[in-house]
Amino acid sequence: MKDITQLSPREIRLLIRKGKWDKPTSGLGMGYAQANLVILPEKYAFNFLLFCQRNPKPCPLIEVLEPGRFKTEFMAFDADIRTDIPRYNIYRKGHLEETVKGIKKLWKLDFVTFLLGCSFSFEEALLRAKIPVRHIEENKNVPMYISSIPCKRAGLFHGPMVVSMRPIPPDKVTRAIQITSRYVSVHGAPVHIGDPSKIGIRDLNKPDFGDPVTIRKDEVPVFWACGVTPQAVVMKAKPDLCITHTPGHMFISDLLNEELANL
Amino acid sequence: MKDITQLSPREIRLLIRKGKWDKPTSGLGMGYAQANLVILPEKYAFNFLLFCQRNPKPCPLIEVLEPGRFKTEFMAFDADIRTDIPRYNIYRKGHLEETVKGIKKLWKLDFVTFLLGCSFSFEEALLRAKIPVRHIEENKNVPMYISSIPCKRAGLFHGPMVVSMRPIPPDKVTRAIQITSRYVSVHGAPVHIGDPSKIGIRDLNKPDFGDPVTIRKDEVPVFWACGVTPQAVVMKAKPDLCITHTPGHMFISDLLNEELANL
Repeated sequence: MKDITQLSPREIRLLIRKGKWDKPTSGLGMGYAQANLVILPEKYAFNFLLFCQRNPKPCPLIEVLEPGRFKTEFMAFDADIRTDIPRYNIYRKGHLEETVKGIKKLWKLDFVTFLLGCSFSFEEALLRAKIPVRHIEENKNVPMYISSIPCKRAGLFHGPMVVSMRPIPPDKVTRAIQITSRYVSVHGAPVHIGDPSKIGIRDLNKPDFGDPVTIRKDEVPVFWACGVTPQAVVMKAKPDLCITHTPGHMFISDLLNEELANL
Repeated sequence: MKDITQLSPREIRLLIRKGKWDKPTSGLGMGYAQANLVILPEKYAFNFLLFCQRNPKPCPLIEVLEPGRFKTEFMAFDADIRTDIPRYNIYRKGHLEETVKGIKKLWKLDFVTFLLGCSFSFEEALLRAKIPVRHIEENKNVPMYISSIPCKRAGLFHGPMVVSMRPIPPDKVTRAIQITSRYVSVHGAPVHIGDPSKIGIRDLNKPDFGDPVTIRKDEVPVFWACGVTPQAVVMKAKPDLCITHTPGHMFISDLLNEELANL
């Protein structure tokens, strides 16, 4: 097998479709945007779409498919949302029931698919500007925290914003804000800079999701809205059924990260 | 009566509510964002919200109210969408049936309200940067054209993008792009610069809506996505009922234009 990191997004999706890759997608398809997945029955779709409209930082929509559709029209050519993601989480009534490698057998004609931007896109831009991304350096998952920042409610969907944290050297904080501000559709500019207690985070060494990372002396913790928010919200809203990607196991699109930049 | 141009957005909305102002809102509440209005029965709401998600330049959503709600939560305090707009257009099956000063009697519990950004916000920013806005100089309506740029379809909603045109001196085109790029939620950066025929416009002197304006020698016609697009799309989609503002008679919000800028 060719080195997977050298394959195109379409080639990687085909490998995943054939069941030959079920691991995280970090580092794959470099330069191309990866996306968070949320699938809900149609009866919840309007309220979830409204939730995303009201909370664009944690829930930056890149593509929404009409009920029953499983082929993307914008993000990728010839992609099948039922098979092209390495692992899926199946939530029933807010409870994670199982993790599976495909959802063809579960598919229903009223399923509405939402694809949301992912911070991998702006991390690549940070690295290109020589701004360190600690969890990548330490080969860890980004640390994520349930903040005290409330999302705006839409119907049954509500809850606190989940944020990711990256420690930034003080002389690079402004540049990190500038760079991520360009990427509105992948969480955009930070939601908070500095003192974690101001957004309800007690201990940076105890993230709610992901791994703790080293914070060096003088480094400033910078917090971005995180794509785990919709999963946390879905767990609270307890819809009959919700299918998401398994965290870290993303949809790899044909869109360049640069195509998602606003400026 | 106090000079209306000196009143706050809330004071102007109260005058409108009492039936004391039914004229266009251009020049009122300077500094504050005005919004386009679209109201649809709930059965069309998901597809229209999807249409806006897919076509953010002509349809930049600022606030969406849940079915039956007529009070804004984000754009204004104590505003009533049924009374606080000077004139409403009532479309039935895509046909403009009548223009009215209030819609309290028509209101139904399944009505979903969409408020969309308006170019007044970025025009103020252009003027502040000494970039001429010709239709304001000439005291006219902005010229608008049905372009050949297709919108992305969502259910029954589809059609060409309507664009507005402002002639810009060649040495100010770059600056005009930079300034309007900041205002993603009020149509954002231009969709086309220069030769109108490239986007299907035959004669700049014959706009489809609004008034023709003077284009001076060497000036470049610059085209922005226009908030009339949703009305044109609704006329094509022919829903049972759709209520919009009457063009030019906008909703005046409590949000500063500057609050809508992304950067």
